Amino acid sequence: MGSRDGSGVSTGGQDYAADIDSIREAQARITPHVHRTPVLSSTSIDAVAGKQLFFKCECFQKAGAFKIRGASNSIFALDDEQASKGVVTHSSGNHAAAVALAAKLRGIPAHIVIPKNAPACKVDNVRRYGGNIIWSDVSIESRESVCKRVQEETGAVLVHPFNNKYTISGQGTVSLELLEQVPEIDTIIVPISGGGLISGVALAAKAINPSIRILAAEPKGADDSAQSKAAGKIITLPSTNTIADGLRAFLGDLTWPVVRDLVDDIIVVDDNAIVDAMKMCYEILKVAVEPSGAIGLAAVMSDEFKQSSAWHESSKIGIIVSGGNVDLGVLWESLYKR
Amino acid sequence: MGSRDGSGVSTGGQDYAADIDSIREAQARITPHVHRTPVLSSTSIDAVAGKQLFFKCECFQKAGAFKIRGASNSIFALDDEQASKGVVTHSSGNHAAAVALAAKLRGIPAHIVIPKNAPACKVDNVRRYGGNIIWSDVSIESRESVCKRVQEETGAVLVHPFNNKYTISGQGTVSLELLEQVPEIDTIIVPISGGGLISGVALAAKAINPSIRILAAEPKGADDSAQSKAAGKIITLPSTNTIADGLRAFLGDLTWPVVRDLVDDIIVVDDNAIVDAMKMCYEILKVAVEPSGAIGLAAVMSDEFKQSSAWHESSKIGIIVSGGNVDLGVLWESLYKR
Repeated sequence: MGSRDGSGVSTGGQDYAADIDSIREAQARITPHVHRTPVLSSTSIDAVAGKQLFFKCECFQKAGAFKIRGASNSIFALDDEQASKGVVTHSSGNHAAAVALAAKLRGIPAHIVIPKNAPACKVDNVRRYGGNIIWSDVSIESRESVCKRVQEETGAVLVHPFNNKYTISGQGTVSLELLEQVPEIDTIIVPISGGGLISGVALAAKAINPSIRILAAEPKGADDSAQSKAAGKIITLPSTNTIADGLRAFLGDLTWPVVRDLVDDIIVVDDNAIVDAMKMCYEILKVAVEPSGAIGLAAVMSDEFKQSSAWHESSKIGIIVSGGNVDLGVLWESLYKR
Repeated sequence: MGSRDGSGVSTGGQDYAADIDSIREAQARITPHVHRTPVLSSTSIDAVAGKQLFFKCECFQKAGAFKIRGASNSIFALDDEQASKGVVTHSSGNHAAAVALAAKLRGIPAHIVIPKNAPACKVDNVRRYGGNIIWSDVSIESRESVCKRVQEETGAVLVHPFNNKYTISGQGTVSLELLEQVPEIDTIIVPISGGGLISGVALAAKAINPSIRILAAEPKGADDSAQSKAAGKIITLPSTNTIADGLRAFLGDLTWPVVRDLVDDIIVVDDNAIVDAMKMCYEILKVAVEPSGAIGLAAVMSDEFKQSSAWHESSKIGIIVSGGNVDLGVLWESLYKR
């Protein structure tokens, strides 16, 4: 666990890609376009967890995930000339739908490069919002090269899923909202992948209250962030293997410094724990949560967390339930056929 | 459709089992014990419905349904001597869990008579809250006779699922909340079964704004209320046949006068439409909704509603999503195996 005296969490001495001002600007920019999502709680789950939990339900966000915050901040920040050429991104999932929706709201074209193995419900979302789907192979190289070709052909602006000031600032608004809704929260648990969400959440939360603990939750089959924290530098993996289809990206050069400095610890959980958490979300919270969205609850329930000093020091824990886009059949198969 | 000039909706001239005062008293009594549930909306669903819809999500209520409102109002209204002997009810579902939980909160025993065909997740809920389960046969006669025996043996007070002033007043608090959250609502659609929920909702809403339209949604296989409205007297059915396991009861002598006078119309939908609505709730709203809870959305989407004058006169429609207790396997089977 990182230092708890606050000295290590000042954001004043270091230049990060975003800060509380850019996050407040993002909030003003995107408020007309996004939902203020509710915070749910359950005494039944609290009794099992031994802590008071506050679920920030971004699964109820437009397009079913927090991604619309970063996407709409990026797209509405474009000047009219830039915007007129449209936007492009590559994503297997929630960022794709979010860019399609934000572009639709702005009235500009969105070209979405999607790998062939993307979950059906996430592809449906892109279609629902009128995104122009361009298929690529599964490899990140294929996705990037197709994306680059579209950029060259159309002049569209790339909306990066995480390694971008506007994306990070947009995602940070979830933290502003949560702390308005439940100011007494002392710990926030955030899924980590490319690091856009947790960077925004940490920058906003620590600016408001430097003593707030920020914990990342990461799947064991894609634990590059935990390895990066341990090594003190960005580590990438040759491959990933996890049910959490939204958590397979690696940190970028803009998100890594924030994760390095402001994330107090990373809790690694296996897929079985993620499925248990999805089941609990469905059966008790009555919320459809995708694997990546359930990982925060999985982390709270983990032995690793319960044996940490953070567990003893935490009392009121915010959990970012990042998204709800899960095919019902997949949920059913993973919950009851394992 | 009933008269829309307001003259038919005054609650002043008639003595009903509850009124705005008893409902406000209920709100004061139960607020420490229940959730203030969020209201969700979805532009995707609005686009399909052609109206602005506001989903009052009682599926997120304690014990997964609105029933805790009436049960806790009934149980916390008991004096200490009455309460000390405990409470009893017969219910196949959400009322059972609600009585068990409310009794637990009050610290008194709850005896719950459950028919052998009750959904597993609802029985689990009763167990989770420490209710003393007593099995009965499926018939209403068996349930009532077992319940009566428990009353005689223990002196426990019967908490009726709908035909009771305190139950109706408690359920009415959902309407107070919804109109605080979205004051501009002009129509509320409410599932109807024994009539406790819709009576409370109608009494509160029409007292606050007499021009609010109250529509009931009822399954075709248990359409006793629609038949009762048409006949001008309580009609009961020899049997019922619907997936909506929470909507198989018939009106009582306290709920009938409210339904007769204050419910503007009843929209009858078939099970297929209910399943379509559950699917939409799951896939777009990201909410686990039981069949009885999805029927309001099914009604909004129905041809019957779209061809009515109420459709043309409605603009902002509140939908009471009454509960979320549905076995995932049942949801999966009904959605994708039909």
